[in-house]
Amino acid sequence: MRFAGTLLAAAGLALASADAAGAASPKAAVHAWRQAHEKEILSDFVALLAMPNVATNVADVERNAAYISGLLQKRGFKAQLLTAEPGTPPSVLAELKTPGATRTVVFYAHYDGQPIGQKGWISTPFEPSMRTALPEARSIDWKAAQTLNPDWRLFARSAGDDKGSIQALISAFDALKASGVKPSVNIKLLYEGEEEQGSPHFAALVAKNLELVRGDLLIMGDGPMHQSGKQQINFGNRGITGFRATVYGPLKPLHDGHYGSWAPSPTVMIAALVMSLRDDEGRILIPGVYDDVAPISAADRAALAALPDVETGLKTALGLGRNIGPPRLADGYMAPTLNVRAIHAGDDGPNAANAIPTEANASFDFRLAPGETPRHVRDLTEAWLSHEGWFIVRAAPDLATRLAHPKIVRIDWDEGASIATESPMAGPAAKAVEASISRTVGYPVLKLPFMGASSGMAEIVNQLKAPMVGVSIANYDDNQHAQNENLRLGNLWDGIEVYAGLLADLTW
Amino acid sequence: MRFAGTLLAAAGLALASADAAGAASPKAAVHAWRQAHEKEILSDFVALLAMPNVATNVADVERNAAYISGLLQKRGFKAQLLTAEPGTPPSVLAELKTPGATRTVVFYAHYDGQPIGQKGWISTPFEPSMRTALPEARSIDWKAAQTLNPDWRLFARSAGDDKGSIQALISAFDALKASGVKPSVNIKLLYEGEEEQGSPHFAALVAKNLELVRGDLLIMGDGPMHQSGKQQINFGNRGITGFRATVYGPLKPLHDGHYGSWAPSPTVMIAALVMSLRDDEGRILIPGVYDDVAPISAADRAALAALPDVETGLKTALGLGRNIGPPRLADGYMAPTLNVRAIHAGDDGPNAANAIPTEANASFDFRLAPGETPRHVRDLTEAWLSHEGWFIVRAAPDLATRLAHPKIVRIDWDEGASIATESPMAGPAAKAVEASISRTVGYPVLKLPFMGASSGMAEIVNQLKAPMVGVSIANYDDNQHAQNENLRLGNLWDGIEVYAGLLADLTW
Repeated sequence: MRFAGTLLAAAGLALASADAAGAASPKAAVHAWRQAHEKEILSDFVALLAMPNVATNVADVERNAAYISGLLQKRGFKAQLLTAEPGTPPSVLAELKTPGATRTVVFYAHYDGQPIGQKGWISTPFEPSMRTALPEARSIDWKAAQTLNPDWRLFARSAGDDKGSIQALISAFDALKASGVKPSVNIKLLYEGEEEQGSPHFAALVAKNLELVRGDLLIMGDGPMHQSGKQQINFGNRGITGFRATVYGPLKPLHDGHYGSWAPSPTVMIAALVMSLRDDEGRILIPGVYDDVAPISAADRAALAALPDVETGLKTALGLGRNIGPPRLADGYMAPTLNVRAIHAGDDGPNAANAIPTEANASFDFRLAPGETPRHVRDLTEAWLSHEGWFIVRAAPDLATRLAHPKIVRIDWDEGASIATESPMAGPAAKAVEASISRTVGYPVLKLPFMGASSGMAEIVNQLKAPMVGVSIANYDDNQHAQNENLRLGNLWDGIEVYAGLLADLTW
Repeated sequence: MRFAGTLLAAAGLALASADAAGAASPKAAVHAWRQAHEKEILSDFVALLAMPNVATNVADVERNAAYISGLLQKRGFKAQLLTAEPGTPPSVLAELKTPGATRTVVFYAHYDGQPIGQKGWISTPFEPSMRTALPEARSIDWKAAQTLNPDWRLFARSAGDDKGSIQALISAFDALKASGVKPSVNIKLLYEGEEEQGSPHFAALVAKNLELVRGDLLIMGDGPMHQSGKQQINFGNRGITGFRATVYGPLKPLHDGHYGSWAPSPTVMIAALVMSLRDDEGRILIPGVYDDVAPISAADRAALAALPDVETGLKTALGLGRNIGPPRLADGYMAPTLNVRAIHAGDDGPNAANAIPTEANASFDFRLAPGETPRHVRDLTEAWLSHEGWFIVRAAPDLATRLAHPKIVRIDWDEGASIATESPMAGPAAKAVEASISRTVGYPVLKLPFMGASSGMAEIVNQLKAPMVGVSIANYDDNQHAQNENLRLGNLWDGIEVYAGLLADLTW
């Protein structure tokens, strides 16, 4: 009876009342229900994943929101769509009160997805496809299979990031209902529709609907599990602010034989700009950018030190002959990181030409540590670029501007940005989550002070000042944000049990 | 009577015998014939440009070769297609003997073109379109026009580089024939079909057909005129060798929030590689790369110093707030240049993702000065990359290689490469060309010791050891190698007269 848990029994936490009421334990009942309904759950998940949800296409995003609202209304939730302003991606807010419950838990996830145009997709992003793991990725006729291997993976955009969390919670709810287990808390589901755009309107959306989304605990269902394969919870995310830099060469493309020794090359200029901001070892070269970073607490250091060693295995799995930054992966989350998302200059492949292009660009995102603000990091970045001789513009420069300034860079900051979120690891609600998941999985859940990623959740935490715990169910190798995103079936099954445990027996 | 010339009359050069025979001077006759046949010439040129000729598509290239052979056979030339080996792009060799002539002049041009996939073409590259100059580029119905404005431009791939030279010579031949003017020399036309690929088979083609292509003077009809708008001749081209560098990150794309502080970024690695080879001021950073460069002769220095100042006007026309390298454009041709053709890393625009890509690449070409060899420059480049910590591979690395080496770069050298060509400015054949063109244009033609560009001609010059003179007719702003390539009509008309002058009165 793993659900009752033994490892944390000494903590003296009350088990959910349903545990005593049913013939089987809730955990056993959920487990049995899931096993009996795997193909139905998968069919529902495939239908959810088949809906295009690239964050930049608001019409697609709205279709997803309406569909998810419908799923929840069918289950007795009171669902509505919230927007910051008309035409912006809606969030789904769904509420279900539990008679007698005194706590309200807000479960956050996001239903929008990253763009899909990356090269190398082995299947169509919005036609979910069951396969063995990469690199083999053999196609599986799962509907015809007698049993479903938990190591199979469902390939689709958002399978891991982040529709898997939505499916797992809905299936957990179905499992509890079928087993006659009542939730222990009032439930609010808040499903965001623009997380993959950096949540440009989410702060306003939350501010506008503050009372509607208020709760006593926020559970953020996003991000991957620990690379060791163990369940982890986290208590924060880094902030984010990104930008695109465009540098300018000649007004017309030039033959590089005739002009290469005389005309400035935007291709070289963009490489120089990149290397003035960050080095190959991951150090950010912008003066002052580390100054605001909050010191790391002793509790955080202890939690980081307790994480299993995964780095050696990761290097082998990823084919890396080295790492950059601190040797331990999660140690790097405590500081800002500057990622260079892309550099594009000139034509390559069949369109390659011996020419000097007219412009070049690079795209960046900062992951911000606690203490930093997007505003200050932007100011420091622009001050450094100015110091390095760049004249900063906000639109394509006109001829007079080009002639007056030898080095011009256009900076377009991403619309969305957020500060880091941090929530105490030792609060009663956080401890209740830790205990519930540890009971479900049968071992002490890993605790990560910070996720490396960012989240629209930051805005809720900062506005509602409720404690937050991140609960991730996706396999770490789910290729989120890239081609061939996938969710391992076993992770979906485990996720259903984790969510069912939280719904059934969270008390504090 | 511009054709007879007055400026160089003092040089005492003999005029072509035809000058005395005809009622009008050959120059006047050619001029009149061209004026009377502008639309026919243009129709022929449009038909030639409408044939797709991207150098990588051998079938297209072969169709062009057959078509051009046909044009020349109709005019009495003995034409044949030469190849280095079956399946490689053919060169057209066409020959016409002139009774009594003692000299054979080989006119070189190339009929293949650069790729066409660049963004921003205002018309379709192989549907020639008459327009006013950029940026307005207003479409013109030239067939309905009463007169053709010489400032109009015909937009099409290869209009300037290099089918314009072919059309100008064919029309010059037609003009002389119609005027009853006999050529003064035996004519060979050698039209290459893979120049824009770096002439990978041209050396072998010439070696295999050495006697067929032999001549007493090579005239290379390629490249743009001087930026001042004055006619220039040149006596050499730089060599070329290029490569593509691919660097490797994780085997799978990674979420940059979770892994950006730990996993090496190929995006940053490729920028670092670029900046280790060349700086933003155009200096090549590879040790030894300038050591082989031949010293600049006093004659070359004098010729360079005599070139009109175009740099100030060029900066304004190109919207450049600075130049790199030597202040004078052509001074830079006397040294090697490393051009960074392209950098590609990660996805941008609608496919942008906050991810670390698996690899990144950059593409380079060296323009080589006299004294340098592609082999030695390649060796120096690879030695420097090794010194900088790169492990060089020739194919995508396997897992063991990735794990054994922290920084891996795959280097793919371009198939085509050539050394620089240099021919004496003061030889009798070169002087005859100088005099002929000066007579035609009515002023002392500008002399450029070197073109910045490269040419398959290098192989002929080096094998045949005949003097070479480069004669360019295209407007300098013809956008060769880029989108919106175009030839100014006035340049085509002047080019016809220049070629007619060379055909009619070259003697030495």
